[in-house]
Amino acid sequence: MHPATAHRIAAAYARIAATNRPEIWITLRPQAEVEAEAKAIDPQLPLAGRLFAAKGNIDVAGLPTTAGCPSYAYTPQTDAPVVASLRAAGALLIGTTNLDQFATGLVGTRSPYGAVRNAIDPTRVSGGSSSGSAVATALGIVDFALGTDTAGSGRVPAAFNGIVGLKPTYDLVPAEGVVPACASLDCVTVFARTLPEAEQALAHMTSGPTTAAPPRRPGPYRIAIPSTTQLGEMDKGWPEAYEAAALRLAAAGAELRPIDLTPFTEATALLYEGAFVAERYTAVGPFVDKDTPDLDPTVAAIVRRARDIPAHRLFADQARIAALRAQALTALGDADALLLPTAPGHPTLAEVAAEPFAANARLGRFTNSTNLFGLCAAAVPAGQVEGLPFGVMLIGPAHADERLARIAALLTPPTRIAVVGAHLTGEPLNPQLLSLGAHFDSTTTTSPHYRLYALPTTPPKPGLVRTTPGDGATVEAELWNLPPEGLGALVASLPHPMAIGSVELADGTTVPGFLCEPSALEGAKDITAYGGWRAYRRG
Amino acid sequence: MHPATAHRIAAAYARIAATNRPEIWITLRPQAEVEAEAKAIDPQLPLAGRLFAAKGNIDVAGLPTTAGCPSYAYTPQTDAPVVASLRAAGALLIGTTNLDQFATGLVGTRSPYGAVRNAIDPTRVSGGSSSGSAVATALGIVDFALGTDTAGSGRVPAAFNGIVGLKPTYDLVPAEGVVPACASLDCVTVFARTLPEAEQALAHMTSGPTTAAPPRRPGPYRIAIPSTTQLGEMDKGWPEAYEAAALRLAAAGAELRPIDLTPFTEATALLYEGAFVAERYTAVGPFVDKDTPDLDPTVAAIVRRARDIPAHRLFADQARIAALRAQALTALGDADALLLPTAPGHPTLAEVAAEPFAANARLGRFTNSTNLFGLCAAAVPAGQVEGLPFGVMLIGPAHADERLARIAALLTPPTRIAVVGAHLTGEPLNPQLLSLGAHFDSTTTTSPHYRLYALPTTPPKPGLVRTTPGDGATVEAELWNLPPEGLGALVASLPHPMAIGSVELADGTTVPGFLCEPSALEGAKDITAYGGWRAYRRG
Repeated sequence: MHPATAHRIAAAYARIAATNRPEIWITLRPQAEVEAEAKAIDPQLPLAGRLFAAKGNIDVAGLPTTAGCPSYAYTPQTDAPVVASLRAAGALLIGTTNLDQFATGLVGTRSPYGAVRNAIDPTRVSGGSSSGSAVATALGIVDFALGTDTAGSGRVPAAFNGIVGLKPTYDLVPAEGVVPACASLDCVTVFARTLPEAEQALAHMTSGPTTAAPPRRPGPYRIAIPSTTQLGEMDKGWPEAYEAAALRLAAAGAELRPIDLTPFTEATALLYEGAFVAERYTAVGPFVDKDTPDLDPTVAAIVRRARDIPAHRLFADQARIAALRAQALTALGDADALLLPTAPGHPTLAEVAAEPFAANARLGRFTNSTNLFGLCAAAVPAGQVEGLPFGVMLIGPAHADERLARIAALLTPPTRIAVVGAHLTGEPLNPQLLSLGAHFDSTTTTSPHYRLYALPTTPPKPGLVRTTPGDGATVEAELWNLPPEGLGALVASLPHPMAIGSVELADGTTVPGFLCEPSALEGAKDITAYGGWRAYRRG
Repeated sequence: MHPATAHRIAAAYARIAATNRPEIWITLRPQAEVEAEAKAIDPQLPLAGRLFAAKGNIDVAGLPTTAGCPSYAYTPQTDAPVVASLRAAGALLIGTTNLDQFATGLVGTRSPYGAVRNAIDPTRVSGGSSSGSAVATALGIVDFALGTDTAGSGRVPAAFNGIVGLKPTYDLVPAEGVVPACASLDCVTVFARTLPEAEQALAHMTSGPTTAAPPRRPGPYRIAIPSTTQLGEMDKGWPEAYEAAALRLAAAGAELRPIDLTPFTEATALLYEGAFVAERYTAVGPFVDKDTPDLDPTVAAIVRRARDIPAHRLFADQARIAALRAQALTALGDADALLLPTAPGHPTLAEVAAEPFAANARLGRFTNSTNLFGLCAAAVPAGQVEGLPFGVMLIGPAHADERLARIAALLTPPTRIAVVGAHLTGEPLNPQLLSLGAHFDSTTTTSPHYRLYALPTTPPKPGLVRTTPGDGATVEAELWNLPPEGLGALVASLPHPMAIGSVELADGTTVPGFLCEPSALEGAKDITAYGGWRAYRRG
């Protein structure tokens, strides 16, 4: 076994112990069994050394498939094709995860295995139905995890736990070996902490024939943005966070355009209130009718209520969805994607317990229509609101999966960095910033808590040092915006004794900026009185 | 005018003066004229504040179009459509750039406006024919620049100057208003320092009807890699750098597969040795026959030699290319891209002067076949060899432009970072590394030149300090690989007094790692004797 794989497995089980979230798992494999399996894996395989988990409604050979209901369980002889593909690529499955029973819910609390607590704030819901997979990924226990998504189950938990959730185009990933929720809508999804990791896993999950991506008119990415009125009520700060994500795409070159969200909103209501819920009875109704004691009462009520829906109403609803889908595609026009908040808000466990139906229904406001319309989606983190993750979702036409990921990558902000010396405009190392793709932002100064030294380096560089209050002054600084690739190259090429740390600016905010190691100050000259590097260099 | 735009223009002209490369320009617009134009630009436009240059064979209203030959010059009334599109999107053109005359050459020395010196090593060629545009971009004078590419002119200079060069699918970018080289093959290209910047500019250059990207079989990206034998002789260290780029794609999840390069190599020979060169006579032959004194003798000889090629040979060569193209597409199969070095080596100005034909022919070995086969390509930096840029090229089928850029982005390596304290496996901040997508690499120690302090912070953190030789010890460290997006988030959230700088490891190499600001050491306890943070914490 590769030493990094041994370390990865040991770290995962140590983290399972340290985080103490037993409700994540339905079946967790013993560490020794996973280590034994790891020894047989060719370290050259593309996913060798990666750990993953599968939602408890996906077949893993030899482990019970429960769908969140112990009395429903069966033990499959073979892996679901999606699990088999990932294992063939070298990934190691460490267990099956908790879920809203029969994948019916967006909350993560509807399970006899326990309510799954949010990875960041344990008083809040994890989101569901793919609750355990999302939290195991967010806590760093696994590298990626499988979920399923019928109405948002692969996206809402991504948003609540600050991770990526990709809901591929229907039929792109095989759904064999998965307990159906609504078989005509179900998609296997993947969670990961970064977009590239999610995409890499998805690449090994896909199957089927060659399919062309939808054609697009050349030009910048076109992103459809509904009015905040149409988005409706949201948690405090969420409309602003959504708007910031849209502006970030515009700053990265995308063209924003308005869209009428009405067909999406109307379809959302039809998913649970219309006849489509009858497909859940088709899947597990006869089992639910047996009334085993481990049924979740909310889930059982939803499934049972679906039994008596007449087929003529399904025909009517299908026609209605077809009409709404046509309207939605017309509204999208040649937009590459629709940007939406992944959910309108993030309830506590107590709030969901108080109103199990209403709280759940609210969560699906933006996700429910995607599968009904045959679209694909990528849910990605987009900052934080009051210390909790905020997520957005890009929705696009069937087979636009790759393009949505490409657009989602544009949401990664550049790093604003403060320079005070050789990287200032016109100074010798400024071309390095330019060559890394940096763009000038503004000129400012540090807060009055710094001293500046001329270091005995070649070329001459300043050392910026934070002082105790009252002992410092402001120092001239420029702010530059550096793209992610450029930051990596800058950090990798930092020469001793230069360092990057937190610099306090005149307006009280802090940004990363150039500092120096303590040893650099030996023999250095205090030049604080000049007010900046340029003034000192001019003499 | 936005203050950042004013700063950008002033910085560009200051850099032009500081770098002293007059041969870059054929017509450089006066700074005051550019500033006046900038005042009229809506700062909300997507490319507002971006500076660009156009190769001297592309029409800019009111500036002479020379194609590198003063006696050929005419002054167009209107911008070429590609220039007009970029200006309409807010970009500011500052001038037209030098080129191998009539875009005939890959060296950058065939011009009466002077040989264009390489941006990094002025004793070497810039590459051509889009020489001035590449060097202006590499030196940070402009943010992006337009080139053209018939046989590699938009890619070879990208490789030699360490920047990105995108050669789009034929007809994706309008070629009206461009002096033709071989009209049936010419593409307008774009140079930028980063891939996102190049893609953003290209998005505003494209036109034409909706075209679907070629379909692909689901699964990981499949990259065709020829044997090093088929690549032939290259500069010292270049085969290894090429192999490293291939392995980097594999590490990012791509599947590498062998390919027989023979049809590509045979087509390369046909471009200059066959009948296709006659199209250059079609374009400028009657002018060259006038024998004006400012003709470049090498270029003139190439064009004149093409005059007497009989048409029957063109029919034969066209048939031969059609057959080779079919072979090439069969060889590619369902590969998403062919990975090649952009060029086999990087000659000095003296070497090209000594052998103007042979040195030039060698440079096109990998690029010449692309346009003949109707393919698209993305040339991107892939590290350095002996202090000079090394570049690779991804080549794919028509309309795979977006996909090639996506694959090229995978060439950005993760940043290997050393952690010595709270980010170690099992320590309180290790989950932060995991949540940023980091993967464990290995356990090691620093070189014996460090002291470790326990800082009075919450949570407790160590301060790693480089000492003078003889006064330090080794300190336990872990190395983690952090993807670019994750590094940005880590750096942006660095709390005072933590810093990232260069850490020397036991094997003598240096990597970025956690250090601390000088002020942090006040009241800190020297814990070097423990050998590491974990041992200290255990007591």
